[in-house]
Amino acid sequence: MAGTTGTSLPFRLALAQCRLVVGDLAGNAATIRRYAADAAARDAQLVAFPEMALTGYPPEDLVFRRSFCAASEAALRDLAATLVGDGLGELPVVVGYLRRDEHDRPHNSAAVLFGGDVAAATDKVLLPTYGVFDERRYFEPGSTFAAVTVAGVRVGLTICEDLWWPGGPCVAAAAAGVDLVLCINGSPYESGKADVREALIAERAAEAAAPVAYLNQVGGQDELVFDGGSFVVDESGVTLARTDQFTEELFVVDLTLAPRPTTTAAQAAGLRIIRTEIATPSAPRTDPEPLTVAPRRDRLDLDYAAVVTGTRDYVRKNGFETVCLGLSGGIDSALTATVAVDALGADRVHTVAMPSSYSSRHSVDDAAELARRQGTRHRVIAIAPMVEAYQESLHLTGVAEENLQARVRGTLLMGLSNQEGHLVLATGNKSELATGFSTLYGDSVGGFAPIKDIPKSEVWELARWRNAQTPDAPPIPQESIDKPPSAELAPGQLDSDRLPDYTVLDRLLDDYVENDLGRAELLARGFDAETLDRTMRLVDLAEYKRRQYPPGPKVTPRAFGRDRRLPITNRWREGT
Amino acid sequence: MAGTTGTSLPFRLALAQCRLVVGDLAGNAATIRRYAADAAARDAQLVAFPEMALTGYPPEDLVFRRSFCAASEAALRDLAATLVGDGLGELPVVVGYLRRDEHDRPHNSAAVLFGGDVAAATDKVLLPTYGVFDERRYFEPGSTFAAVTVAGVRVGLTICEDLWWPGGPCVAAAAAGVDLVLCINGSPYESGKADVREALIAERAAEAAAPVAYLNQVGGQDELVFDGGSFVVDESGVTLARTDQFTEELFVVDLTLAPRPTTTAAQAAGLRIIRTEIATPSAPRTDPEPLTVAPRRDRLDLDYAAVVTGTRDYVRKNGFETVCLGLSGGIDSALTATVAVDALGADRVHTVAMPSSYSSRHSVDDAAELARRQGTRHRVIAIAPMVEAYQESLHLTGVAEENLQARVRGTLLMGLSNQEGHLVLATGNKSELATGFSTLYGDSVGGFAPIKDIPKSEVWELARWRNAQTPDAPPIPQESIDKPPSAELAPGQLDSDRLPDYTVLDRLLDDYVENDLGRAELLARGFDAETLDRTMRLVDLAEYKRRQYPPGPKVTPRAFGRDRRLPITNRWREGT
Repeated sequence: MAGTTGTSLPFRLALAQCRLVVGDLAGNAATIRRYAADAAARDAQLVAFPEMALTGYPPEDLVFRRSFCAASEAALRDLAATLVGDGLGELPVVVGYLRRDEHDRPHNSAAVLFGGDVAAATDKVLLPTYGVFDERRYFEPGSTFAAVTVAGVRVGLTICEDLWWPGGPCVAAAAAGVDLVLCINGSPYESGKADVREALIAERAAEAAAPVAYLNQVGGQDELVFDGGSFVVDESGVTLARTDQFTEELFVVDLTLAPRPTTTAAQAAGLRIIRTEIATPSAPRTDPEPLTVAPRRDRLDLDYAAVVTGTRDYVRKNGFETVCLGLSGGIDSALTATVAVDALGADRVHTVAMPSSYSSRHSVDDAAELARRQGTRHRVIAIAPMVEAYQESLHLTGVAEENLQARVRGTLLMGLSNQEGHLVLATGNKSELATGFSTLYGDSVGGFAPIKDIPKSEVWELARWRNAQTPDAPPIPQESIDKPPSAELAPGQLDSDRLPDYTVLDRLLDDYVENDLGRAELLARGFDAETLDRTMRLVDLAEYKRRQYPPGPKVTPRAFGRDRRLPITNRWREGT
Repeated sequence: MAGTTGTSLPFRLALAQCRLVVGDLAGNAATIRRYAADAAARDAQLVAFPEMALTGYPPEDLVFRRSFCAASEAALRDLAATLVGDGLGELPVVVGYLRRDEHDRPHNSAAVLFGGDVAAATDKVLLPTYGVFDERRYFEPGSTFAAVTVAGVRVGLTICEDLWWPGGPCVAAAAAGVDLVLCINGSPYESGKADVREALIAERAAEAAAPVAYLNQVGGQDELVFDGGSFVVDESGVTLARTDQFTEELFVVDLTLAPRPTTTAAQAAGLRIIRTEIATPSAPRTDPEPLTVAPRRDRLDLDYAAVVTGTRDYVRKNGFETVCLGLSGGIDSALTATVAVDALGADRVHTVAMPSSYSSRHSVDDAAELARRQGTRHRVIAIAPMVEAYQESLHLTGVAEENLQARVRGTLLMGLSNQEGHLVLATGNKSELATGFSTLYGDSVGGFAPIKDIPKSEVWELARWRNAQTPDAPPIPQESIDKPPSAELAPGQLDSDRLPDYTVLDRLLDDYVENDLGRAELLARGFDAETLDRTMRLVDLAEYKRRQYPPGPKVTPRAFGRDRRLPITNRWREGT
């Protein structure tokens, strides 16, 4: 049985690309109310919030706490009632939340609030359990597909991974004959992912035979950075509307939907189709506005935004006012300081130069010059007296002596942190983390590590890119970019004494760490056997250091941390 | 169609309760050959090895590496051939390994090697994805049940979780009419788990209508400690045989099996039943030996063995010869040193007393006395000169000054580690880790933390228990056990100034951390509201410290680390 509902349907949809905080039910509810009021003021016919907007995402093991589940469900009911009190009872509001079903199993769910009640609800069907995701650990998969009619438009509700694979809820969407698929997400940033996402969602739109409105949250949550970039794509693969990444905004889109034939299908793709009709005003009061498609920013721009956003949110959401970090005069700490200033403002960034007897004059000068350009709160503490005090008891030599210097610096920064209340930022990059080219409890100290997922080659690229954004006032001294990298822990030391050239190294790390290639494949890609074997060994043996490294924003497709989980005790060596 | 095969069947089964190393395919294959030779010498009719014996378990993200999967499959083929060369071609050998199927999906598998070939194989069906387990991340579930006839005995092959839940492979075992279910495991130790395991497996034996032989590996792998404790339980719930926990051995059991009716069932519990017949000699040549049921050791004995085993294996498997740790004179470092000596021998344990101006005389004496009793390599380094060197630049006060002292000690230990090659052991306990009552990069430094999952109350219990084992030469000075706990970072400081009494604290932590109870439930259990709120807040806010803490052996049902995964950025507070 099928028929059509007639002529084209205008529909004003508001996508709340907002910032949320894990565990902050009251704060997130307040954010939702604020955006909902804005959506109503702009005559939206439905406003949607991201995946698990009410609890924040991902809540990780909070899901196991019954009190937290109950609080999520209570907060949803309270929100429904409060929205009525706010005069928003007539606006359907789609909210992601956490619920337990009648068998006490947790679900990643979405509810439509209307008139003070939950008018419809559904559960996430496909549960990602790879990369940074552990959803099979937490949730039971959903078994329903919700088609909700709002102002004459049939909207199918889906959650994130539901649209990542064929054969799932989009098949049910097609069977249910929805006019529009709404997908609410908590999709973390990865370099290049936005294009992948849009192409994939276009395929799902074709499968659903309806446009898809894709909403993503924005902001940092520990290692994850959500990049927003919400969009609408139609079933022919055309992107109808797109907003910028990393911006907080209410993205209002005026859609003109082609009505689908009505159906009576009760089930598809193993999902029970549940239809709900919500009686709302049938058309927006104000005239439709033209759709905008924001241009895609380039890779460096986005990666930099991810790092700044991740840093800002970690600092703010955890209640810190200020950060401190060591400035060596080198490129890593220079970029980290610049990220911090862009994230928080210069007056919240405390920089410390901690020269040793091996530090060159220009290092101290470059650090001071960066502080001057950016206006950070800068000080200089020479480490020789502390190093000498240790050496009178320890008489360390070689690497042990090098590490001692790094640890004195770490202890100094932590002392300032404890005394003055700063969060310490670690300045290591991904190439360093990969090869273990850092000192545990030395340069690795910190609560957050902004560039830990940026390969060294990209550290230089980002520094140049950032300088180019403000050509009249480049924040990073050219000397810090140009000089050969050195840890300056021994006389005349250069990184190139111990590591391959960073261009080669980063290409190799990309293939070994990101792509999990084996030795034969790496040799076939032209890497020299000696470099290869030495580098793989460095990577394998540094796992224990990475395990104790601070969190930092994921930027690449496979970040160290929860994304790549290798045993420390591990005798597997490629090629053996 | 059903019938019986006749009179009772004698069957000599060898369970290789052995120690394996993740990633060490060649080493594990050598271990397997050694045990298989022993099994043949003892006239066993089948020898079984633990879950993923060939690759080590759990291999974590090594599973994603194609080269590693291919190496596992190649190692299995090589092993089959080598066993023939060893004269063991007539002995069926059950080996756990990693394989990729024809769709390139990884499986946690078991193979029966015989006559130089893989005579039968099956995949793990139930994949644990909770607690420390992430198997849905790694493996596709199996779809078969393998019944292998060896010497006239039909043996059903299962892997670990397959026997943890009803309605799974044991239903297929019953349908297939097997005479014996063999279950190969990598089941980590938890306090009290051995009894749970045996009771659960007895239920499965009833479901399978056949005895179950349960084999577990032994040894430490990062945070996990496998405790062995292999056993055989019959379908009426009687434990027929059991070996000790934490021992490496070939456990040979002479079973007399009641033959089941033969069946022709092709499928059960959604699994395809695959029958294989292996032509082996039908009875052991030597006379059966009586079955032994090792008594269950008590909780403290087992917990201590877990900690010693975990420490020994982390040190050895990672190639360290020696360890070092700070000895404060307090109970935590005293117990950690004792564990290290029991694990490695006193000549491999370097202890360092690092008194400050706040250290009491008796602390230094108690540390020296412990070193004297146990024969560790002991030295004393006063920290005042280093603390003063920092203070001339920093002028720290309060907690910042306290932390400075701890970090000077951490830097000293790491200096010795770098110079002399020791692995540093951190000495923190679970109560300290829970409440954040430790200094990041101070007393938390180390490659391994032996007692990190032991609550403070149990630290005392274990110290007393250990002293009681050698009453003529108690390793731990009674003073270290008896004195009130203090970090000695400020004059006259006691733990009780900042924390509730440890008896109350540990009970509360057990309910909050292990049992995930909410505030209302905790109040109902009689905790004082102020203590409760303060403690929960301490636990919540210390997540960032735990994230950077070294690994240590899991002992409780919920250890910090991969077992309990909470966000750092988390505004959820119980009762708010």
